[in-house]
Amino acid sequence: MSEPTKFLLPEDAIPTHWVNLAPDLPGEPLPPLSPRTGEPAGPDDLTPIFPMGLIAQEVSQEPEIAIPDLVREAYKLWRPTPLYRARRLEQALGTKARIFYKYEGGSPAGSHKPNTAVPQAYENAQAGIAKLATETGAGQWGSSLAFACSLFGLECEVFMVGSSYDQKPYRRSMMETWGASVHRSPSERTQAGRSQAAHPTGSLGIAISEAVEVAAGDPACNYALGSVLNHVLLHQTVIGQEAIAQLELAGAGMPDVIVGCVGGGSNFGGLVFPFLRAGADCRIVAAEPAACPTLTRGVYSYDYGDTVGMTPLMPMYTLGHDFVPPPVHAGGLRYHGDAPMVCALVKAGRVEARSYRQNETFEAAVKFARSEGIIPAPEPAHAIRAVIEEASDGEAKTILFGLCGHGHFDLAAYDAYLAGSLEDPEFSESDLEAALAGLPDAPVIA
Amino acid sequence: MSEPTKFLLPEDAIPTHWVNLAPDLPGEPLPPLSPRTGEPAGPDDLTPIFPMGLIAQEVSQEPEIAIPDLVREAYKLWRPTPLYRARRLEQALGTKARIFYKYEGGSPAGSHKPNTAVPQAYENAQAGIAKLATETGAGQWGSSLAFACSLFGLECEVFMVGSSYDQKPYRRSMMETWGASVHRSPSERTQAGRSQAAHPTGSLGIAISEAVEVAAGDPACNYALGSVLNHVLLHQTVIGQEAIAQLELAGAGMPDVIVGCVGGGSNFGGLVFPFLRAGADCRIVAAEPAACPTLTRGVYSYDYGDTVGMTPLMPMYTLGHDFVPPPVHAGGLRYHGDAPMVCALVKAGRVEARSYRQNETFEAAVKFARSEGIIPAPEPAHAIRAVIEEASDGEAKTILFGLCGHGHFDLAAYDAYLAGSLEDPEFSESDLEAALAGLPDAPVIA
Repeated sequence: MSEPTKFLLPEDAIPTHWVNLAPDLPGEPLPPLSPRTGEPAGPDDLTPIFPMGLIAQEVSQEPEIAIPDLVREAYKLWRPTPLYRARRLEQALGTKARIFYKYEGGSPAGSHKPNTAVPQAYENAQAGIAKLATETGAGQWGSSLAFACSLFGLECEVFMVGSSYDQKPYRRSMMETWGASVHRSPSERTQAGRSQAAHPTGSLGIAISEAVEVAAGDPACNYALGSVLNHVLLHQTVIGQEAIAQLELAGAGMPDVIVGCVGGGSNFGGLVFPFLRAGADCRIVAAEPAACPTLTRGVYSYDYGDTVGMTPLMPMYTLGHDFVPPPVHAGGLRYHGDAPMVCALVKAGRVEARSYRQNETFEAAVKFARSEGIIPAPEPAHAIRAVIEEASDGEAKTILFGLCGHGHFDLAAYDAYLAGSLEDPEFSESDLEAALAGLPDAPVIA
Repeated sequence: MSEPTKFLLPEDAIPTHWVNLAPDLPGEPLPPLSPRTGEPAGPDDLTPIFPMGLIAQEVSQEPEIAIPDLVREAYKLWRPTPLYRARRLEQALGTKARIFYKYEGGSPAGSHKPNTAVPQAYENAQAGIAKLATETGAGQWGSSLAFACSLFGLECEVFMVGSSYDQKPYRRSMMETWGASVHRSPSERTQAGRSQAAHPTGSLGIAISEAVEVAAGDPACNYALGSVLNHVLLHQTVIGQEAIAQLELAGAGMPDVIVGCVGGGSNFGGLVFPFLRAGADCRIVAAEPAACPTLTRGVYSYDYGDTVGMTPLMPMYTLGHDFVPPPVHAGGLRYHGDAPMVCALVKAGRVEARSYRQNETFEAAVKFARSEGIIPAPEPAHAIRAVIEEASDGEAKTILFGLCGHGHFDLAAYDAYLAGSLEDPEFSESDLEAALAGLPDAPVIA
């Protein structure tokens, strides 16, 4: 048999620790600020909705944190995930580059999200919590948390953005199959929801407000977030740690370029942070949609994580917490901000950000599907687009990218692309002005 | 870390040969009969629509057949597939049995079907054929062939059963993403389709007739079938060969019971035949739907493979080639006949057949999803139901079953089950009478 295509690790190669990049970050640490006082947020801002185990991870400066045994056990349902050499894509591109991808779509929920859903469900179960509330847009995160809650015997209540609830009934069915209850947001269930009845299509920001309200009002219920926060990125570092071992196995050593898509930043951070910890001297590219260009067009400032302004203020690139991105199909990238840890790396120049329009990402995704077989989700299609650019400069470099999920629930988008009816919304100057005007009364960071 | 959950093989453990069970089958060989003459079918009945490479496999009595290098290369995109120990399901059932499952849902198309789509596309490409025509019901086979054709540069034309075309637009999008063209069947494209315009919802039998007509009328185009035929079951034997090696790796040796679902019989045969070749002294259970109980209620007789009567007559259990099964969600099990090789084993008493109603299979599928994570397709849910029965007798036995695909495109069915609106159609005495009356003028086999 000729050259290998997949690089697999045995179960005992599942990492024993998560990589916490906090102590390695460039610049002064910028604490989150309390939405009540504007002062650095303390435990009082977090304990009503998060268990102490996760709060400790959120603020930790330890370079690594042990993965609990029961979490590693659950990871065995789909981890270690495969690293592929994209031989057929290389051939289709006629490139001299070697292209590798780390595929997270084989998890039960179909993306990288269960990597953090499982430890979040575990820590809450350990703390005696009976139920988790969360929001979901396209449904990747909600279904991952529903799956994780089914493993640890927790109830799960999901507020699903109204427009997605209508368009993606199968993601809702998936959550219900794992035992979760799902509300169309804005809902009648919460004050936040009732206050937004005039916006029937909903938004992630509104759905977050609803879930936080439910968690804050019920001592047996906590809240869970699928991206952005430090502990979420921490949990995702299993991805990059495995990838380092697999590139070694492939005899490829360290890559010259690492590419990931960025929505909230957790898939990107999870892939990249272990390479940064290992001192990799490579270029790092973050790919985002031109319709929601947080890293390429946003302002670096303190802003809220949700629409209503219930969450702490976080230091990040933001388009303004009341910015509602146009309905591009990469629902997982439609977030006004980004993880503070990823933003700090962009601010310091360690990470390059690029934005792509919808049609060019789907063109790349179809090229990938027709050579490698796997149909990618619209989010990592942004990374594939950037990889094809990188591979087209004639250099014999090694490229690694994160293929964070499959597109089985996104085929309506492929349909629209193939029919030529996909729009290419872009962020305008007036969008930017509105974003700046909408920022809260908090410091823009120098 | 405690006990292992998954048993993985390296790429070079992909089998080098397929297992041909033909020489081992009990009883006298029963040749297919020509639909024109009623005599044993010869090459003239097959060459207009199949390449010689596949015809040779179809009639071979060699005990094993080498897998071409380029097919093994393509298999590396998803093979070897994992064998899982269902520890969480065992725990949920409180059983003494050890339950293993071989999971084929990680292929690009989401089931075992690419195992045969790839060699079929390969043999046709080798023969200089430019295009393949086929039918598809729920879409598993059509999407697998579309994927395989994209790998070997072949055009692909799919006739999709009308009711599925309307209900499952995403399976159509998947085929189109891989470059196939898809018609709603019955179509205006063929004489067979135009003659069936009075049956607008279509059926597999009608769609087969359309695809065969297209292939027979175009020298550059052949036909491809996703189940039933000897060469299709042959290609699927990679499943069972890997499973034997993985049970060895797990220290489990030979199972006491093997369970698979049966529609046309290819997933079942692919899992079971290598164990029979190895002389496994185990019970073997075939699970089928009560709405289409071919093995448990059908007659053992010669019958056509399609509705119009264009295919050779095959010796099999059949409900009559014009039987239209009620629209249960396990679309892959809605076929009036079964693979002759599997039928011969049932006839000889080597395989036990059982039938299950729709609601009891979904109950089993939800139990599986909430313990093991993976949401099964409705077809293998029949096998899971049988496994739960087997595991409930208090014995400490080893059970192996085939989880041949995921349910990502079947969530409407889960939705209906959870809402309590799923029907439980059963095969009636009058259905049986109609089946007997509809049989062609050919010998009922003693």
